[in-house]
Amino acid sequence: MRLIEQPHHDGSSLYISDAAPALGDVVTVWVRVPAAAGVSAVHLRSTPDGEPHFVAAEVDPVRTGTAVGGYGATDVWWRAALTVRNPVTNYRFHLRTAAGDTYWLTAGGIVAHELPDDTDFRAVAYDAPPAWSADAVLYQIFPDRFARAADAKPLEALDLPDWALPREWDRDEVIGQGPGTAEQFFGGDLDGIAEHLDHIQALGANTVYLTPIFPARSNHRYDASTFDEVDPLLGGDAALARLAEAVHARGMRLIGDITSNHCGDAHEWFTIAASDVDSPEREMFYFDADTGDYEAWCGVKSLPKLDWASPLVRQRMTEVLRRWLEYFDGWRVDVANMTGRRGAQDDAHEVAALIRRALPADAMLVGEHMHDATGDLDRDGWHGAMNYLGFTRPVWAWLRGQAPGLPNFFGTPGDVPSRDGAATYATMRAFAARVSWRSLLHSWNILDSHDSARIRTVTGSAARQLVALGMQVTLPGTPMVYAGSEFGLTGWNGENARTPMPWHRAGDRDEPTLAAYRELLALRAAEPALRHGGLRWLHVTSDTMVYLRESEQNALLVAASRAAGEDVSLALGARAAGVFAATDLEPDGTGRLTLPGDGPALRVWRLEPPR
Amino acid sequence: MRLIEQPHHDGSSLYISDAAPALGDVVTVWVRVPAAAGVSAVHLRSTPDGEPHFVAAEVDPVRTGTAVGGYGATDVWWRAALTVRNPVTNYRFHLRTAAGDTYWLTAGGIVAHELPDDTDFRAVAYDAPPAWSADAVLYQIFPDRFARAADAKPLEALDLPDWALPREWDRDEVIGQGPGTAEQFFGGDLDGIAEHLDHIQALGANTVYLTPIFPARSNHRYDASTFDEVDPLLGGDAALARLAEAVHARGMRLIGDITSNHCGDAHEWFTIAASDVDSPEREMFYFDADTGDYEAWCGVKSLPKLDWASPLVRQRMTEVLRRWLEYFDGWRVDVANMTGRRGAQDDAHEVAALIRRALPADAMLVGEHMHDATGDLDRDGWHGAMNYLGFTRPVWAWLRGQAPGLPNFFGTPGDVPSRDGAATYATMRAFAARVSWRSLLHSWNILDSHDSARIRTVTGSAARQLVALGMQVTLPGTPMVYAGSEFGLTGWNGENARTPMPWHRAGDRDEPTLAAYRELLALRAAEPALRHGGLRWLHVTSDTMVYLRESEQNALLVAASRAAGEDVSLALGARAAGVFAATDLEPDGTGRLTLPGDGPALRVWRLEPPR
Repeated sequence: MRLIEQPHHDGSSLYISDAAPALGDVVTVWVRVPAAAGVSAVHLRSTPDGEPHFVAAEVDPVRTGTAVGGYGATDVWWRAALTVRNPVTNYRFHLRTAAGDTYWLTAGGIVAHELPDDTDFRAVAYDAPPAWSADAVLYQIFPDRFARAADAKPLEALDLPDWALPREWDRDEVIGQGPGTAEQFFGGDLDGIAEHLDHIQALGANTVYLTPIFPARSNHRYDASTFDEVDPLLGGDAALARLAEAVHARGMRLIGDITSNHCGDAHEWFTIAASDVDSPEREMFYFDADTGDYEAWCGVKSLPKLDWASPLVRQRMTEVLRRWLEYFDGWRVDVANMTGRRGAQDDAHEVAALIRRALPADAMLVGEHMHDATGDLDRDGWHGAMNYLGFTRPVWAWLRGQAPGLPNFFGTPGDVPSRDGAATYATMRAFAARVSWRSLLHSWNILDSHDSARIRTVTGSAARQLVALGMQVTLPGTPMVYAGSEFGLTGWNGENARTPMPWHRAGDRDEPTLAAYRELLALRAAEPALRHGGLRWLHVTSDTMVYLRESEQNALLVAASRAAGEDVSLALGARAAGVFAATDLEPDGTGRLTLPGDGPALRVWRLEPPR
Repeated sequence: MRLIEQPHHDGSSLYISDAAPALGDVVTVWVRVPAAAGVSAVHLRSTPDGEPHFVAAEVDPVRTGTAVGGYGATDVWWRAALTVRNPVTNYRFHLRTAAGDTYWLTAGGIVAHELPDDTDFRAVAYDAPPAWSADAVLYQIFPDRFARAADAKPLEALDLPDWALPREWDRDEVIGQGPGTAEQFFGGDLDGIAEHLDHIQALGANTVYLTPIFPARSNHRYDASTFDEVDPLLGGDAALARLAEAVHARGMRLIGDITSNHCGDAHEWFTIAASDVDSPEREMFYFDADTGDYEAWCGVKSLPKLDWASPLVRQRMTEVLRRWLEYFDGWRVDVANMTGRRGAQDDAHEVAALIRRALPADAMLVGEHMHDATGDLDRDGWHGAMNYLGFTRPVWAWLRGQAPGLPNFFGTPGDVPSRDGAATYATMRAFAARVSWRSLLHSWNILDSHDSARIRTVTGSAARQLVALGMQVTLPGTPMVYAGSEFGLTGWNGENARTPMPWHRAGDRDEPTLAAYRELLALRAAEPALRHGGLRWLHVTSDTMVYLRESEQNALLVAASRAAGEDVSLALGARAAGVFAATDLEPDGTGRLTLPGDGPALRVWRLEPPR
């Protein structure tokens, strides 16, 4: 069955009467069925308390026959009542055609055989993420490299710590590997960030995410020596207070970064624990009773791992997380995938839930997960995850093409692989299908970060970076812009890409790319469908992917092409008004639209009933 | 990539040096790579503590170039060291071809895009199931319908309970629905079973599984009124002791059936709880504090649901489970999918682990799961599940064909659907890929049961029943024969199919079918590869499925066809010696075997190096 003819449901508000139901609620769910699918019966299946239960759906006379969202006047809408029996209530649909064929509709799409539950749709009755976070556009700042306050003393005038190797902002190359990588010190600070909020706001970001700001013995500060103060090298607590005030004064928000899995070996908790076996802090870490050796993140001894079985860890870490919400509006949780896990111990979900409950309801809480996060979401813990596997990797592998020479695919051996549109669609759908709609929206769609190559380097061109950006802005999820990528900066690995921002190097700023970021992020801000709307895939070829984002009010049609190809003809029964890089399209006599095949390109239209 | 050219790994002992490793062990895992795959590099990926970790595999010079299992002398064997870091250690392989293509090998097969972890291979360090259970062949008995002891009094002479409607064994039709279904009483008893152990043993079964034997107010006895004695109508405790002794004297085993989710409303625990709000038993059930109403299985008020949050439930039920192991060698756990689950409460995994730990290590423990069990296995609880979804349903849907009129597909609306070989393969693989090899082997492959139509009725012919049986005997998993199906008995739903055994009705016994059961079960008993060997799929078309079961010693080739079709040509570099319904096959000059295309048929060969 072609994508465009497939019955559709997702967890967006167009398809479920309450996307944040309470336990015990009965909600209505809808399936949109193109007439071409020839469906004659629909049942809703849920599995209350683990046992399958079917109810017959009925045709919705209100929606059927109307052009919901501006298209599809011949679509049939089926509706059924879903009881939210469990905190995560799985459901799927069983469809029968007039010809007698049967198939399932799950979050993975149409499947004409029996399949496990893991791609069922999910209605989640746990407390919802804060409302503001579904509209967030994140701007990630690695503080040492973003900006140094105009009135800050030169580095030479500072009493730098022993580990720091001072570097000159606009002169010295970033060390990407080997000695000096973690010690090179460019001296960005928090007041420097505050001075550039105009840039961030004009870009279209509304939420500033800072990598760690606690004192440490590295430029990345993931090895905190305390969680009790802001690094004086960044300006200390007062500078964070000033930055937070400036951010909030603009109606923007500020997100912190916490290492829940470990601290630095200079941290007071660890130094006490290491030097005194009878100290209360001893239980906070994994010391071998015989050798005195301790567990550390991936064996890196400067990062001793915290033991969340310890009541003291739970108490102190939740205190830390709560305390800094005086300034922050939420947390990005470092190495969330390992937090609470060690050998036979797996407290990961319990810890995530513990942390979430320790924070106020309006705090964002997103886990870093350089791995498959699907098993760790919808657990009443992290609102979402940094979506490297379900977004970053497929976008990279599609847009990188056959270009060799970038052996940094998040640890997977070899270069970034080359994948076609079908593989990219399959990957995105596989990961999206294994989390609730809510968790998908609240996960971060990342093109690059302080831990990766730059998207410009990955895609190899401004044109393909724009396609990547367009997907980031138009696919479900929270966009995160890594500071500098809006200027087209490059970098072949995470460390190399931690480029000092080119505030004073106009030649290093790609103004057309910056303009595209501004235009696309503004489009997202203007269109609720791009922020919360459902996702319906329409057409996938090797080089082109076409999808809809749809709300009750309108539907936006997006076409992403990595290369020039054939025109795409789609029977949508609508006209399309160009809203980004696209001219208006009129349907032919049979209701078909023809989308231009040139590329690389990303285009967006709004669907409207034919004239 | 064609199936036969795909690199292969599974969790069988041919592919992992220790299939029951301890936590912290380092084991060797192998990948068998056909030369045609053109693989130039293999990496093993595991995810210790949630973080991906790669190690390079190397070519194994010992296995490579030899015809392991009797075939594939040109295959390349790669090996790598896997550290069993977590109780369930996920792993998969990353392969690169000489042409530069990359793909993953998971338990779901070859995938050329990123995919979630849920189909990763699993090395499980939890306590292993008892060794004997991997060789078990189960024979399911519904006691009321199996046999009445020769010297038992006639029903008229008994003081039957009020609910029982006496029926005449060889005369009365079984009531399949409506009034009398649960009350019709044919009077089978435990001594009757003991008198027919010759039949069971000659059939090739070695483990007798009894549906409940506690007193109740129905013929199925899933509504126990006590767990403290055997129903006197069955002969009481003494009869069970006699039966157990007789079974064990033959080196066979006996499995009981426990309703862990509920008891009957006549159970003393419930009657006390219902009549005395201050009784200790009150906490064992879910009483509404206001209305006094109580939770029951699927709303059936005669089956009040047990609350496993109650310490008293935990104590009493584990006592029951332990006590009857005086006679039983393990338990089939009724409604395991719902046990411990209700609304926001989900203690299912905890309860399963609690029960397993309460039992001795040599007790079988398998959960009934009429739904997707994959999420409930590999949790240190059930050793396996009754595999309705991953085996029964795909076999039915493949072998039923287009025949209408059997609207009993385990609750799914409509008739048994018609699925082709590709859909059947996809279903079996999807479920098998989501559990460990161990859990697959220890799950029960069921063609029918007291809860379903009979396989003869489903398939519609003896020939197709034989294909079903052949798959049951040759695919990984523990075969369960539902008493009577070896005689070709029919039945259109579970209740209707609870036919009194035709001991005295020779005309109701299909002797050729019985002979096929005996021959195929004997083959399984004779061939370790059929019981524990790896599973490698070779060829799937709409009407034919071909696979290997392989051990270090030999490999058995199985071809199942639901209808006549084209011959199948396979390049295996081996000759094939017929061992069931098959003549010997010699390879042609290029090493290809030609399997005959006629059907319905199930054939088995043993592979041997070419002469």
